[in-house]
Amino acid sequence: MKIFILSILLLSITTLINGGITSKYVRQAQPANEMSLETFPSPPGHNAPEQVHLTQGDRDGRGMIISWVTPLNLAGSDVVTYWIADNGSDVKRRKKKASTSSYKFYDYSSGFLHHSTIKNLEYDTKYIYEVGTDKSVRQFSFTTPPKVGPDVPYTFGIIGDLGQTYASNETLYQYMSNPKGQTILFPGDLAYQDNHPNHDQRKWDTYGRFMEPCAAYQPIIYAAGNHEIDFVPNIGERHPFRPYSHRYTNAFKTSGSISPLWYSVRRGPAHIIVLSSYSGYGKYTPQYVWLEQELKKVNREETPWLIVMVHSPWYNSVNYHYMEGESMRVMFESWFVNSKVDLVLAGHVHAYERSERVSNIKYNITNGLSTPVKDPNAPIYITIGDGGNIEGIANSFTDPQPSYSAYRESSFGHALLEIKNKTHAQYTWHRNQDNEAIAADSVMMYNRYFFPKEETARDCFIC
Amino acid sequence: MKIFILSILLLSITTLINGGITSKYVRQAQPANEMSLETFPSPPGHNAPEQVHLTQGDRDGRGMIISWVTPLNLAGSDVVTYWIADNGSDVKRRKKKASTSSYKFYDYSSGFLHHSTIKNLEYDTKYIYEVGTDKSVRQFSFTTPPKVGPDVPYTFGIIGDLGQTYASNETLYQYMSNPKGQTILFPGDLAYQDNHPNHDQRKWDTYGRFMEPCAAYQPIIYAAGNHEIDFVPNIGERHPFRPYSHRYTNAFKTSGSISPLWYSVRRGPAHIIVLSSYSGYGKYTPQYVWLEQELKKVNREETPWLIVMVHSPWYNSVNYHYMEGESMRVMFESWFVNSKVDLVLAGHVHAYERSERVSNIKYNITNGLSTPVKDPNAPIYITIGDGGNIEGIANSFTDPQPSYSAYRESSFGHALLEIKNKTHAQYTWHRNQDNEAIAADSVMMYNRYFFPKEETARDCFIC
Repeated sequence: MKIFILSILLLSITTLINGGITSKYVRQAQPANEMSLETFPSPPGHNAPEQVHLTQGDRDGRGMIISWVTPLNLAGSDVVTYWIADNGSDVKRRKKKASTSSYKFYDYSSGFLHHSTIKNLEYDTKYIYEVGTDKSVRQFSFTTPPKVGPDVPYTFGIIGDLGQTYASNETLYQYMSNPKGQTILFPGDLAYQDNHPNHDQRKWDTYGRFMEPCAAYQPIIYAAGNHEIDFVPNIGERHPFRPYSHRYTNAFKTSGSISPLWYSVRRGPAHIIVLSSYSGYGKYTPQYVWLEQELKKVNREETPWLIVMVHSPWYNSVNYHYMEGESMRVMFESWFVNSKVDLVLAGHVHAYERSERVSNIKYNITNGLSTPVKDPNAPIYITIGDGGNIEGIANSFTDPQPSYSAYRESSFGHALLEIKNKTHAQYTWHRNQDNEAIAADSVMMYNRYFFPKEETARDCFIC
Repeated sequence: MKIFILSILLLSITTLINGGITSKYVRQAQPANEMSLETFPSPPGHNAPEQVHLTQGDRDGRGMIISWVTPLNLAGSDVVTYWIADNGSDVKRRKKKASTSSYKFYDYSSGFLHHSTIKNLEYDTKYIYEVGTDKSVRQFSFTTPPKVGPDVPYTFGIIGDLGQTYASNETLYQYMSNPKGQTILFPGDLAYQDNHPNHDQRKWDTYGRFMEPCAAYQPIIYAAGNHEIDFVPNIGERHPFRPYSHRYTNAFKTSGSISPLWYSVRRGPAHIIVLSSYSGYGKYTPQYVWLEQELKKVNREETPWLIVMVHSPWYNSVNYHYMEGESMRVMFESWFVNSKVDLVLAGHVHAYERSERVSNIKYNITNGLSTPVKDPNAPIYITIGDGGNIEGIANSFTDPQPSYSAYRESSFGHALLEIKNKTHAQYTWHRNQDNEAIAADSVMMYNRYFFPKEETARDCFIC
């Protein structure tokens, strides 16, 4: 075992330019083939609910949005029943109706998409819930987070650009093999239905079924990616994000937003801000106005960890989508630095990359100061579009590795952020080829508000 | 007269840094006081049509959208009658129904807003049109442009950030005093209703009446400015651009756009592209996708002059809204240079500025090449937010004047673009304090496609 770890160590750390690591890990050639439609049939039973998934349903974690799909809209199909687990004989079952919609897209007609928001749950409590009627009832469970507070340990999984290939499957099940993850932060690009003719919407359904074993049991906080846009005017589909917004909703109104594409939630020790790369973000736009207000509302004494998710990365040194995030970066980067954001998560690029704490906010057009520089107030930027989707891995890097890039690797994988307390959070990235216990990249992150010390990446292979 | 011109010359050209001129013209102190609501009453007569205005109604100038407002929606209120002027006894009157809507905004209820698109007009022909019923019929006229073609002389007026102050009035009537202007290019910020409590929508009505003597007789091509957003969530108004889109429409669909906020028209020798600073413009967004396609459709052999309008300027050296356009610039500037755009018009900053032909498209994050440089393929950028609105003039400049800035002055005014043929266009800017015959700034512009020679600003005071 030690020899194995050593060999990975040697493989991993061979390029050191400006301190950054370009991993030379040689993963097995593995085409990102999509699992067929038939891989994910509907569950058995008349009008059985399917594609069950969860997301946070309020501002602070006492609410949950439970979403599911039924082929027909029969009486009771739109009701969820839920109760506290392990309450012995004192089980109080509650029922909540969903809001239900369906949509057509080109030649596709969706099932009935139900979203039920249940609120005022107990903190830190396991709940059982059921959807479906008669013989098709299906039962799932979730655990609410602890009350928002500064020293509440909580672990987030981080998965992006997942898709539904065999590689996606590996990523998802490797994440699930680890009992630590309590909630997933997902910076966009889910089903990749748009890589199929006429944006084959059946792929949204198979993706929903693929994800259910995870998504029905823990909430996923999404940012919208470009693969959610489904904008296809030449087949008459002119409303960006229409299928996505039917299928995946969130509690955006509780954070004062007008759109599910940008919003925030607070969960345990974290304040999570979700932004949209594909909406207006110029000054005076609703997203800009909202973010300006939102950053003022962040209370680090209550939620010490400030995390932002956005699909298109601002600090990327892979030769795919290079500089696509610049336009948004020049708009908002100084706000992030002034607000001492701890961590920014992005997807989009199908590789893994972690930045140094850098900023590039001195530029005034004429002064030439346009190079990223180390900045203790800046976030670490993580690009984690390596979930395993049909478009395959991004394996061409800019050369030399720029100084803002701390670690980059062309492997599929996922990450974990284990927040320990208000000062420390263990961050690890796990490539699919390794056992989950192995972290190919890891940093003990220090909170920017309470403990703004410089971090050192640890070559922590078993954390 | 000669002494007067000479003294203005001396006043004007006193600061020369990097070749750029910061005009020292001392305009009369003149507060930008708004004309009262009572200044613009509704016209007399039962249900008389008002706020009549025109914009191009098709791709190539054979269509016109005639818009007007009536207090009531009576039979016939939504019909326009039009015919060719001076046709002797051979007058064929045609009628066209409008599409009609109204809206509520906080405590305001609009009149009935009619938009009628008339098509297949003769080129280069004067038309008479009538709106209103019975004793309240009102008659106006317009002249269609010549057929789209490379050597068709045509003159555009350029007015931005107009508002409805006494200064606005000067700007508008000075423009109208010149018979040359055939169509106005208006890069946003019309009524400034949002500078009043709860975005007093009555100011939209008074603005419509104020503009009618001009807007009912020649089309205005608008880009939307921030003062059109009317986004006021705290009073329940959550839909950006709702009043504006009710009141000002355009033929966006004929250019393949999905939104009236970005579109194009071709008129005489010009292809005019209108962009939205306040919508999504990131890669994959509808506006981005549209612009990418639109630039491919430009045929300089047919329309040699390629003009872009956007509200927020990309090259501005005034200390107001400084760098607000950066985010959009980094997204699209290379496209403009590659497409050899002749001229970019912006508003937003309440001053006048003309740029050199510069570009700033070499930057790759790590190379430090972030300074604007002279580029013969680049557009000239005009900031012309000096229409005279209630917020007053912007009179603080960045110092020293950056090399990209060719001429800047804190005066209210307007400009004219007299396209002579496919190679030459006389551009002049007129400050309100002077007689219309006097141009405070002027350049003979050379077409980037047919004659990409370097221009010299002429100190042309009587052109």
